[in-house]
Amino acid sequence: MPIKPEEKAEIEAARDHAATTRRATVPALEEILFQPLSVLDHGFVRVIDYMGDDSAVVQAARVSYGKGTKRVSEDRGLIQYLIRHRHTTPFEMCEIKYHVKLPIFVARQWIRHRTANVNEYSARYSILDNEFYIPSPEHLAVQSTSNRQGRGDSLPPDEAARVLDLLREDANRSYRDYAYMLNEDESGKTVDENRSGLARELARMNLSLNFYTQWYWKTDLHNLLNFLSLRADAHAQYEIRVYADAMIGTLERWVPLCAEAFRQYRVGGAQLSANALNVVKKMLAGEAIDQPASGMSKREWGELMQVLGRQI
Amino acid sequence: MPIKPEEKAEIEAARDHAATTRRATVPALEEILFQPLSVLDHGFVRVIDYMGDDSAVVQAARVSYGKGTKRVSEDRGLIQYLIRHRHTTPFEMCEIKYHVKLPIFVARQWIRHRTANVNEYSARYSILDNEFYIPSPEHLAVQSTSNRQGRGDSLPPDEAARVLDLLREDANRSYRDYAYMLNEDESGKTVDENRSGLARELARMNLSLNFYTQWYWKTDLHNLLNFLSLRADAHAQYEIRVYADAMIGTLERWVPLCAEAFRQYRVGGAQLSANALNVVKKMLAGEAIDQPASGMSKREWGELMQVLGRQI
Amino acid sequence: MPIKPEEKAEIEAARDHAATTRRATVPALEEILFQPLSVLDHGFVRVIDYMGDDSAVVQAARVSYGKGTKRVSEDRGLIQYLIRHRHTTPFEMCEIKYHVKLPIFVARQWIRHRTANVNEYSARYSILDNEFYIPSPEHLAVQSTSNRQGRGDSLPPDEAARVLDLLREDANRSYRDYAYMLNEDESGKTVDENRSGLARELARMNLSLNFYTQWYWKTDLHNLLNFLSLRADAHAQYEIRVYADAMIGTLERWVPLCAEAFRQYRVGGAQLSANALNVVKKMLAGEAIDQPASGMSKREWGELMQVLGRQI
Amino acid sequence: MPIKPEEKAEIEAARDHAATTRRATVPALEEILFQPLSVLDHGFVRVIDYMGDDSAVVQAARVSYGKGTKRVSEDRGLIQYLIRHRHTTPFEMCEIKYHVKLPIFVARQWIRHRTANVNEYSARYSILDNEFYIPSPEHLAVQSTSNRQGRGDSLPPDEAARVLDLLREDANRSYRDYAYMLNEDESGKTVDENRSGLARELARMNLSLNFYTQWYWKTDLHNLLNFLSLRADAHAQYEIRVYADAMIGTLERWVPLCAEAFRQYRVGGAQLSANALNVVKKMLAGEAIDQPASGMSKREWGELMQVLGRQI
Repeated sequence: MPIKPEEKAEIEAARDHAATTRRATVPALEEILFQPLSVLDHGFVRVIDYMGDDSAVVQAARVSYGKGTKRVSEDRGLIQYLIRHRHTTPFEMCEIKYHVKLPIFVARQWIRHRTANVNEYSARYSILDNEFYIPSPEHLAVQSTSNRQGRGDSLPPDEAARVLDLLREDANRSYRDYAYMLNEDESGKTVDENRSGLARELARMNLSLNFYTQWYWKTDLHNLLNFLSLRADAHAQYEIRVYADAMIGTLERWVPLCAEAFRQYRVGGAQLSANALNVVKKMLAGEAIDQPASGMSKREWGELMQVLGRQI
Repeated sequence: MPIKPEEKAEIEAARDHAATTRRATVPALEEILFQPLSVLDHGFVRVIDYMGDDSAVVQAARVSYGKGTKRVSEDRGLIQYLIRHRHTTPFEMCEIKYHVKLPIFVARQWIRHRTANVNEYSARYSILDNEFYIPSPEHLAVQSTSNRQGRGDSLPPDEAARVLDLLREDANRSYRDYAYMLNEDESGKTVDENRSGLARELARMNLSLNFYTQWYWKTDLHNLLNFLSLRADAHAQYEIRVYADAMIGTLERWVPLCAEAFRQYRVGGAQLSANALNVVKKMLAGEAIDQPASGMSKREWGELMQVLGRQI
Repeated sequence: MPIKPEEKAEIEAARDHAATTRRATVPALEEILFQPLSVLDHGFVRVIDYMGDDSAVVQAARVSYGKGTKRVSEDRGLIQYLIRHRHTTPFEMCEIKYHVKLPIFVARQWIRHRTANVNEYSARYSILDNEFYIPSPEHLAVQSTSNRQGRGDSLPPDEAARVLDLLREDANRSYRDYAYMLNEDESGKTVDENRSGLARELARMNLSLNFYTQWYWKTDLHNLLNFLSLRADAHAQYEIRVYADAMIGTLERWVPLCAEAFRQYRVGGAQLSANALNVVKKMLAGEAIDQPASGMSKREWGELMQVLGRQI
Repeated sequence: MPIKPEEKAEIEAARDHAATTRRATVPALEEILFQPLSVLDHGFVRVIDYMGDDSAVVQAARVSYGKGTKRVSEDRGLIQYLIRHRHTTPFEMCEIKYHVKLPIFVARQWIRHRTANVNEYSARYSILDNEFYIPSPEHLAVQSTSNRQGRGDSLPPDEAARVLDLLREDANRSYRDYAYMLNEDESGKTVDENRSGLARELARMNLSLNFYTQWYWKTDLHNLLNFLSLRADAHAQYEIRVYADAMIGTLERWVPLCAEAFRQYRVGGAQLSANALNVVKKMLAGEAIDQPASGMSKREWGELMQVLGRQI
């Protein structure tokens, strides 16, 4: 993740700043505030600002005049109760703002989460850097045969090498021609005085989807948990999952009690259908039950057996 | 606005707390943080938390690594440009959280602003206080004849007195019977051991719409400006307008440059229709134009003349 | 549910209207279109309009040019897959619009579902009818001791009778004084020429929360399912649950395959936490496990045993 | 706009279908239902479904049992009143669903409108067609000097030709290598049995931003008007403006009275700031006023003079 020297200086300046506040403050998150956490080959996530902490969730649930409860154990219990019973509004009372640098095809998945605020770097207004995502060879995989929208085994090394060459060559050519069409350097100075340059809003269409963009992305804790449960899930594409994983790290610093409840009730558990619940009850009662009698499809049955840790 | 002693103590304790933060901090807002600002006879608004400042708007518009611009004058210009051209997303990057105590009929108008986070005091779970709104005599007015959903002149003193008596008597009786049906005091202790008590979720239906409720209400700056432009408007009901007015005071402390642009472009200006614009052009050209020729209704024509400060 | 004769005539006129359309049309829902379905003592729900059907969900999931799939069995399988894997966006492609008449305290819970469109009858502009909700005696219950925001056993008959008397008397007095303060009848005619009348936006504050209001409420199928799963749940207050139940009836007419998947995956199943899943695995493996060793609280353990149909 | 024969057949089949409905139906919109309206070189917009009409707006504003008003002239007046006074909720009661084929860089602007429902063709699941946007020569323009995010004069013909060659060559190479990496044809059959193929979710990153994607996009009338007022505006990029223009055509068929009010109050008019309003008043009073005395920047002053049709 190459941060330019002037960007690094700006980040350092921001980190050096200190102020006194009456607001809820979280030292563990302050520690990493503004610092880019490296993701993929050129990407990052960094926390830019936040509002609230674990106590703010409790405080909102009680609509109190002061802090939530007096003891951490009470806060933990209440937070677990809220998340278990889908009382989601108190989690909306905390807010976090990230600065993210990410490939455009990842940005296109991410933006589908609508309950968030976004400001993206504008390629109508500015010139994009020559930075694109190239997977590491072990992440190059064939189309999955079991899951029609995922990936399966890794490519053989020679094929992987060929793919990487193509991706690199095509991205480099894309950018070279983008720059040629613009006919201006990063500072906006004309390169070749004998030519005009194409408007930025047009030239950008020549770039491929692995080029990096960046944005400010702000959301509340409830919607962040939704985002993380979907995007840190095994079914999510690897390239967005690594962002979600980095953000879970920031979640644990920020609101450790909420993060714990999230793991317990949203990540580590399982949703059973009516049929699946019936199967479990029969098994517990020692009754014989198999897939055809369960009312479940083979696929669902397989998923259930996996959840229960049984041989299929 | 009677704040109970234990609530006052909690507020004081919160105000005494100080922490060091790397986040954007606004001293003028910190000054009044947590303090209830009195509204109506028993209501208040108090700022509980905030995220961002004027610079955060600029920073988001630029997707920068550090602060927005170096100079206040540049920030002012950019903020005015953004608000003039309806580039609203940078304003979403700031967030504010209020604790509000307000009559239920005001809450019912307020909640129509959907892009906000709300936690309301639950009358299924808790017992409401015996606090209800009684207008001051000068705010008792007849139905407006020009605006079918507003109020006109004040009531004559004897009628006002009669109305206030009715409002007070009915609210007191409502609460007395609510308390009787509950058969428990505020701490949940049974009052009359020989009777059961009605569930809170049912008893509350006996209270009238002028009883006070309270909630935590959190929104971003863009949606706050929308709320304020609609609710601080002369067409808004007086009882919600006073809340909006108090919140404009907090806006000016929090983001003075945004507040200035808000006054300039959202409050103090006017929206002209195509027909109205045409009338203005003709007037400037010295051409005669009257209502029948304008394509405007009498009402619209009247509104336009008023905006232009002309005799009708 | 007393519908006024002129309202009934309007409904009949709307039902008599027939047009030809190329749009997806659902005969089973057309059958009851515009008809009020009675809820509580004076309330109703009626379907006013709808967009899409089961096929529209499939069609959206595939982004197809024509209909979804050729066979119902394929549609059923895909819809179940989508709901199981939380692919919620295709369900947003169907829309339904209701006209609802409901007590104000129910409206205040309902409005918390923000992803919907609402137009409420305005008591600033119009005069409310003298209609308020009085529970039937068997629904009058004491505060629950196990669930701090619910109700428990029914009140003894004499206490119930006393409560009903109070509710009725207070509501009648509320309305009588509301009408007196307005000093106008429903058509807007002054009653007593020697008095002014109070503005409607003020007089309404004297009404209690069991008075009926009405609104148009429109939402997409995904958000409808969310609403129904929360409000038809046993933890929801009875007075909103009966609305949800009536709406589930309309759901089954409208999108029978989605309704079936909803029952299977959202209503009839269960969400297991990480700890709960671990308990189930141990039980299936024949290992001893009890509440203290489970990492679960007594309450959670009890809930799990109930879900599994076990003795506690 | 090349529609494949099997797609055309599906569209024709859908258009041949007719059903009887009690719902509000709009013959002028039914006429073009499902038909693709050509936009750019390979794109289209087609209306897939709709709910409501002009009367539904009126009906919602009144929360009525039947239709809105009896006469078109009353409906027109009320709709204009609603839009003038920003009473936006009645417009949310109508809904429209489009199927759109559009370049990815246009989709990235479009998706920023969050209050809409979207299902996009998935390139994780399916293979994209070899279709990309190439501007016509007259739309190739230099970067604007007056507006930092727009375009200015057209490129000289030889430069335009060179740009078109580059865009075409690079897109063709992108797609060729995409197809090579996939190693499967459109039906999913392996092309070269001696090689594996790269997962679709990875291969797609090699495509450039001018490739076409498609989606179902559904929104309510209020949010549609917002979208159209921003995207049909002269400041919008040409490539999205042509979609907005095509959609305004469908708006006029669907809700002619709302379309008329939209033109009068949202498109053809002007928003004056407090300073601008002051300038207009002085001009009308015959007082001298110039830019330095106006409190406005040169740019704003210029914009105002343009709005007023005055020499600058």
